[in-house]
Amino acid sequence: MDDQAAPQELAERVIARMYERDRVAPGLGVLIDEVRPRYARLRMTVRDDMLNAVDICHGGVIFSFADCAFAYACNSENKRNLATHCSISFAAAARPDEELTAVAEACIHQGRIGVYDITVTGEGGRMIAVFRGQCYQVTGASVEGLGDSGS
Amino acid sequence: MDDQAAPQELAERVIARMYERDRVAPGLGVLIDEVRPRYARLRMTVRDDMLNAVDICHGGVIFSFADCAFAYACNSENKRNLATHCSISFAAAARPDEELTAVAEACIHQGRIGVYDITVTGEGGRMIAVFRGQCYQVTGASVEGLGDSGS
Amino acid sequence: MDDQAAPQELAERVIARMYERDRVAPGLGVLIDEVRPRYARLRMTVRDDMLNAVDICHGGVIFSFADCAFAYACNSENKRNLATHCSISFAAAARPDEELTAVAEACIHQGRIGVYDITVTGEGGRMIAVFRGQCYQVTGASVEGLGDSGS
Amino acid sequence: MDDQAAPQELAERVIARMYERDRVAPGLGVLIDEVRPRYARLRMTVRDDMLNAVDICHGGVIFSFADCAFAYACNSENKRNLATHCSISFAAAARPDEELTAVAEACIHQGRIGVYDITVTGEGGRMIAVFRGQCYQVTGASVEGLGDSGS
Repeated sequence: MDDQAAPQELAERVIARMYERDRVAPGLGVLIDEVRPRYARLRMTVRDDMLNAVDICHGGVIFSFADCAFAYACNSENKRNLATHCSISFAAAARPDEELTAVAEACIHQGRIGVYDITVTGEGGRMIAVFRGQCYQVTGASVEGLGDSGS
Repeated sequence: MDDQAAPQELAERVIARMYERDRVAPGLGVLIDEVRPRYARLRMTVRDDMLNAVDICHGGVIFSFADCAFAYACNSENKRNLATHCSISFAAAARPDEELTAVAEACIHQGRIGVYDITVTGEGGRMIAVFRGQCYQVTGASVEGLGDSGS
Repeated sequence: MDDQAAPQELAERVIARMYERDRVAPGLGVLIDEVRPRYARLRMTVRDDMLNAVDICHGGVIFSFADCAFAYACNSENKRNLATHCSISFAAAARPDEELTAVAEACIHQGRIGVYDITVTGEGGRMIAVFRGQCYQVTGASVEGLGDSGS
Repeated sequence: MDDQAAPQELAERVIARMYERDRVAPGLGVLIDEVRPRYARLRMTVRDDMLNAVDICHGGVIFSFADCAFAYACNSENKRNLATHCSISFAAAARPDEELTAVAEACIHQGRIGVYDITVTGEGGRMIAVFRGQCYQVTGASVEGLGDSGS
C-alpha cells in the first residue's frame, strides 16, 4: 500500500467493523456517507419512535447520532479512544421524517487527548445541534486484527 | 388542594403525562422511581440492543437516560423548559444487564435559566456518568390542560 | 448610512465602547484586531503576572481572553446578551511572552439563544484552546445611546 | 506520620507551594480557607479592576477564581494533573466588593481521569456560578521534592 492509501483504507475498514459490531447505530438507521482519517459523515432519518412528548426528535437521539460520528472519527486511525466528555447545544428541533446529517472532524488531536466537533444539520442545511467531544487514547487498537496506520 | 400537596401532585401528573406521550423513554425501558418538584429518579437496565462495538453500553444511551431525568425534573412545575446545552462526563462503562439509576436535581433555577445535575450510577452505586443540563423557560405549559403550580 | 455599512459601523462602535468601560480586557493588555457583526479577533501577550505555579499561562487567563472575544462578538449588534454557559478545552500550554490570538464567530444565533466558537492560537498558529460560549439575549442595548442595527 | 495525617499534611504542603509559585491567585487576592485531599475552599473579594463594561464582575475573573480551587483540589495528592476541559454556568452577577467563596470537590476520580465540581457563591450563600473541570493525570509530582501520598 502506498503512504496515502493506507490511512484512508484503514479508516474505512475500522469504521465498517465498528458499525457491524455496534447495536445502536444500526438500530437508529444510521448510514455512513463518508469516512476519512479523523473524519466521518453520517445520515439518519427521524422516525416516530424517536419522538419525545412534544413530537419532535428526542435530544438523546440527536446526541446518540452525533456520538456515533464522534466515535467513528476518533477511532479512524485504529488507536483506541474513549470518550471522556461530550457537550451538545441544541439550535432547532428536528422534525418527524427529517433527514439529518452529522459531520465529525478533529479540532484538536495532540498526544493522547483529542477534541472533535460534530455538527448536526437538517434539511436544507439548517443547524440542529453542535456537539463537542473529548477523547482519551488508551492502549490497544479500536478493532483488533486490522493493524494501525503505522504511527 | 393544600399548598404542600399541589406542587408534588402537579409534578407527578406532568411527568406521568410526559412519559405517556414520549416514545424514547418507554422504548429504553425507563421506569420512574420518584418525582418531586425539580427532581426525578429513574431506573433502566442495559439491554443487548444498547451495546456498542466493544460490548458496553453506548454513550448515547447513557446520555438519553440522563436526559429523560433532566427533562422530567426541569418540567416538573409544568412550565415549559427547553434544553439548550447538555454535557456529560463518563466515569465507567455500564455493562450488559446492569441496572442503572439516574437522579436529576436542580442546581440553579433562577428566572428563565435552569441548570440541573444528573448522576447516573450502576450496581452498588458505582459512578457511571455525570450530566449537567441547562434549560430555558419559554412561554406555555409543559403539558397543556393540567394547570401550573400557581407561580 | 447605507444598509451594508450600518451593521459594521455599529459593531465597531459598540465594541470600542465596551472595551473603554471594561476593566479586565485593558488590564490583560488585550488589543482589538478586527471586529465585524458576530465576529471579533483579539491579540494578547502572555506576561509574567499571568503565569501559574508551573510557569505557563494560567488557564483562567486563557479563558478570560477568549471570553472577551465572545462578549464582543455576541454583543456586536448592540443587543444585550448575557453569557449563560462557557466551556473550554485546553490543547497546549501558552508560554511566557507568547503572543496569542482569539477569534470569535457565531456558530448558532437563532432567536434569543446564541452559541459562539472561540479559538485561541499561539505563535505559528498552534492551537492553544477552543472555547464555546452560549448566550441569551435579554431586553435592552449592549451599550445605551448607540442605536441598534434596526432588526 | 500516621496514615490519616499524611494525606492531609501533603495536601496542605502541596497547595501552599502551588500558591506561592502561582502569579494569578495572589494577584486576584485569593485566600485559602481550607484544603483537604481532593477538596479546596477559597475566598476572594470583587475589586474594581475585576469589573466588566456593565460594572459587574467579569466572567473571566469568576472562572479564574473557580479554576484556582479546581487546580488545588485536583493536585492535592501531589500527583500532577492537567486540566483538559472546564465548563461554567453563570447563575447571578457578582457585585463590586462582594466576597466570593469557591468550593472544589472531586465528583469522579478514577484512574487517570478526574472530574471536579466547583461552586462559587456570594454573600448570604447566593449562587453565582457552577464550574465543572476535567483533569488528566500525567507522570510526575505536582510539586517536586515533597513526596506523594504513597499510592
